[in-house]
Amino acid sequence: MSKIMPLSGFPEWLPAQRIVEQRFLERIQRTFELYGFASLDTRAVEPLDQLLRKGETSKEVYVLRRLQADPNDASDASLGLHFDLTVPFARFVLENAGKLHFPFRRYQIQKVWRGERPAAGRYREFIQADIDIVDRDTLPAHYEAELPLVIGDALAGLPVPKATILVNNRKVLQGFYTGAGIEDAEAVMRVLDKLDKIGPAGVTAELAALGVAESQAKLCLALAEISAHDASFVDEVGKLGVSDPLLEEGLAELAAVVEAANEHSPGLCRAELKIARGLDYYTGTVYETQLAGLERYGSLCSGGRYDNLAESGNDRFPGVGLSIGVSRLLGALFGENAVTASRSVPTVVVVAVAAEEDRRAADRIAATLRSRGIATEVSPNAAKFGKQIRFAERRGIPYVWFPGQDGAGDTVKDIRSGDQVEAAAGQWNPPSSDLHPAVEGTFN
Amino acid sequence: MSKIMPLSGFPEWLPAQRIVEQRFLERIQRTFELYGFASLDTRAVEPLDQLLRKGETSKEVYVLRRLQADPNDASDASLGLHFDLTVPFARFVLENAGKLHFPFRRYQIQKVWRGERPAAGRYREFIQADIDIVDRDTLPAHYEAELPLVIGDALAGLPVPKATILVNNRKVLQGFYTGAGIEDAEAVMRVLDKLDKIGPAGVTAELAALGVAESQAKLCLALAEISAHDASFVDEVGKLGVSDPLLEEGLAELAAVVEAANEHSPGLCRAELKIARGLDYYTGTVYETQLAGLERYGSLCSGGRYDNLAESGNDRFPGVGLSIGVSRLLGALFGENAVTASRSVPTVVVVAVAAEEDRRAADRIAATLRSRGIATEVSPNAAKFGKQIRFAERRGIPYVWFPGQDGAGDTVKDIRSGDQVEAAAGQWNPPSSDLHPAVEGTFN
Repeated sequence: MSKIMPLSGFPEWLPAQRIVEQRFLERIQRTFELYGFASLDTRAVEPLDQLLRKGETSKEVYVLRRLQADPNDASDASLGLHFDLTVPFARFVLENAGKLHFPFRRYQIQKVWRGERPAAGRYREFIQADIDIVDRDTLPAHYEAELPLVIGDALAGLPVPKATILVNNRKVLQGFYTGAGIEDAEAVMRVLDKLDKIGPAGVTAELAALGVAESQAKLCLALAEISAHDASFVDEVGKLGVSDPLLEEGLAELAAVVEAANEHSPGLCRAELKIARGLDYYTGTVYETQLAGLERYGSLCSGGRYDNLAESGNDRFPGVGLSIGVSRLLGALFGENAVTASRSVPTVVVVAVAAEEDRRAADRIAATLRSRGIATEVSPNAAKFGKQIRFAERRGIPYVWFPGQDGAGDTVKDIRSGDQVEAAAGQWNPPSSDLHPAVEGTFN
Repeated sequence: MSKIMPLSGFPEWLPAQRIVEQRFLERIQRTFELYGFASLDTRAVEPLDQLLRKGETSKEVYVLRRLQADPNDASDASLGLHFDLTVPFARFVLENAGKLHFPFRRYQIQKVWRGERPAAGRYREFIQADIDIVDRDTLPAHYEAELPLVIGDALAGLPVPKATILVNNRKVLQGFYTGAGIEDAEAVMRVLDKLDKIGPAGVTAELAALGVAESQAKLCLALAEISAHDASFVDEVGKLGVSDPLLEEGLAELAAVVEAANEHSPGLCRAELKIARGLDYYTGTVYETQLAGLERYGSLCSGGRYDNLAESGNDRFPGVGLSIGVSRLLGALFGENAVTASRSVPTVVVVAVAAEEDRRAADRIAATLRSRGIATEVSPNAAKFGKQIRFAERRGIPYVWFPGQDGAGDTVKDIRSGDQVEAAAGQWNPPSSDLHPAVEGTFN
């Protein structure tokens, strides 16, 4: 028998941390819905060949097998756990295209699994919260400006440090490289994406190895250095003297993203022309997100525009998506002791029990309080009141209710202050700040 | 490449159905929290030997393997997907006993996976909503009376047919069989559990094969026929003339369960002395649940009391739990077309766009409505208004907002009635019944 112990890479939260996670998920969900995104929940498994479509991710996939699989049962075809929410969403769209209305705005908050070697902030099982807007044939660029506002609103409601969404546009990179006379723009993009890791000298060396001239490499590095909170980056790029129609298109789209963000939440987005999002198949805007003070945890929210989420026959489905790494964000915050819940249970009140024969009466009081939306437990036993108060105290429950004895009325005690007042279960209300556990961060 | 098609046994809901599912889950969660249950979310995987502890379930387990597993990496030890939420909960309690407060009330709403052959109402991936109360060493019987009230409240708030929780107590069966002079009470219990399948004649034959005398078999069948909505079953059992201390204890506990339920929600519980819950390791109260008209879908909510959820050294953790089969319940309701959502998106209002250059102004109106809790989308394009109204109509969105042109004020149109009124985004409110999609059942 294996020892009972945590599994590396499979985070689990204790009850008070779980309350923080729930509050984060509720807030994120609520924001997504305010923007009209519909919820989707896809199965955890996909056919293996669908998961391996992109090739690059094969090492990450968990494959399933029934312990007593029947080789004659076609339903036992190779299945794997999804490693993101984009592949299942693309499959869902193709499978149900006739039943969906386009443009289709959906959010999906689910676990994903990756068989990677666990490391700080890199899990094998984690929760992502994705929004995507997908359309048939064409997708207007204004959605690329809308998505970061949704994420900005979601994060602004959470006790997390200030978020900055770093944006770029693949058209800018592709157009600029082409305009600079570089043939294999994709290869150059991949090298530039490593700038933060290998530095300008490393990039120059790798570009030289690709046959890129020194003057071209200098232009690429100069582009990568451009960064601005407003549309001023357009002029900066212009000064580099490279021109190309795709570059112009990309600059206009990127300026629209930054300007929309500036109007909605000043400082939310920053054009950062070195961002490329590695090997992902983006074709327009790309996003990464830094939280002030948590930069070393990497991008906590990433995504981009893709022209081909899925295709089937003559149908093409372009889209744009952004994904919050919820588990990674929570892992970072818990690791910094930066967020806590005021109690480990939803309970507001414990009804004391003076003797076991009074339990039914205590149950009736609890039922009345619950019917009024007040989470209530009845004491597990008829121990001394001091012990029943400690039962509440240990869990952070703020109130203990004492049913009246010998004709006296009920009283309720705030065990933090010691204040005890007369109360009727059909009328008493706690302050609204006590109704649910308070989730507080050092960053609020 | 595998064909894009549904996978048998892995249900997925369309957006409007998903809204129904969300409403069900919210209501269930809310009820669990009103009773003070804390949420837990455990990882999807457990070590295989933990999953196979009970032996009987080996055929159901999905085993995981990393596509490119490293044989030298101990973290690649055999893992399987959990097939219920009880095994992971027991492991979590042992792993974190020092950090939890007992009695520990937790709920857990998660997917589970079973590699069974898919059939009507039997899925390979499905959502369960579990509540359990677990304590150290001993657990008072009053919790066995409390749990069905929680489930009763959760179901009463949903558009589902009337639920009846059928209850029995293993002590009644065990004590009665012992008192009737039967040696192998366990074996007899297993035979009686098949009563509905094989009938009284089948049971009599199987009992005879076990060496049970005809008179004893008659007593067992007579016990199995007893059923009552109140404590009158105690007298009925008494008339059979069997006496045993464990029987008396079980009858008292069972009477307490039925009486507490009768006080809380008359008709919610029925003592049904044939219920045994097959091979599960229950030691006290056992529960099954029927919904009127949906009996053929089997028990939609089951559980019981166990004296040993987990043990470690000298620590024993008795508990009692009940589990709602959420996916099975939804599958039954969708199969009967018995529940629908009024729209397929959370959106209340679509803001119309007269021309693309007006989009920013439309975005500002949308932001104001959202800040006031009204889910809003902006029209995807500046098509003719008739087309923009159809965009809303197809999704069931009730309102279209028209920004005022040429100095005129904004108006909002209820596209169901055609009523159009002047409105300001900072003040207008839809009727509260329009604020969220309405979920309605033929059973409300």
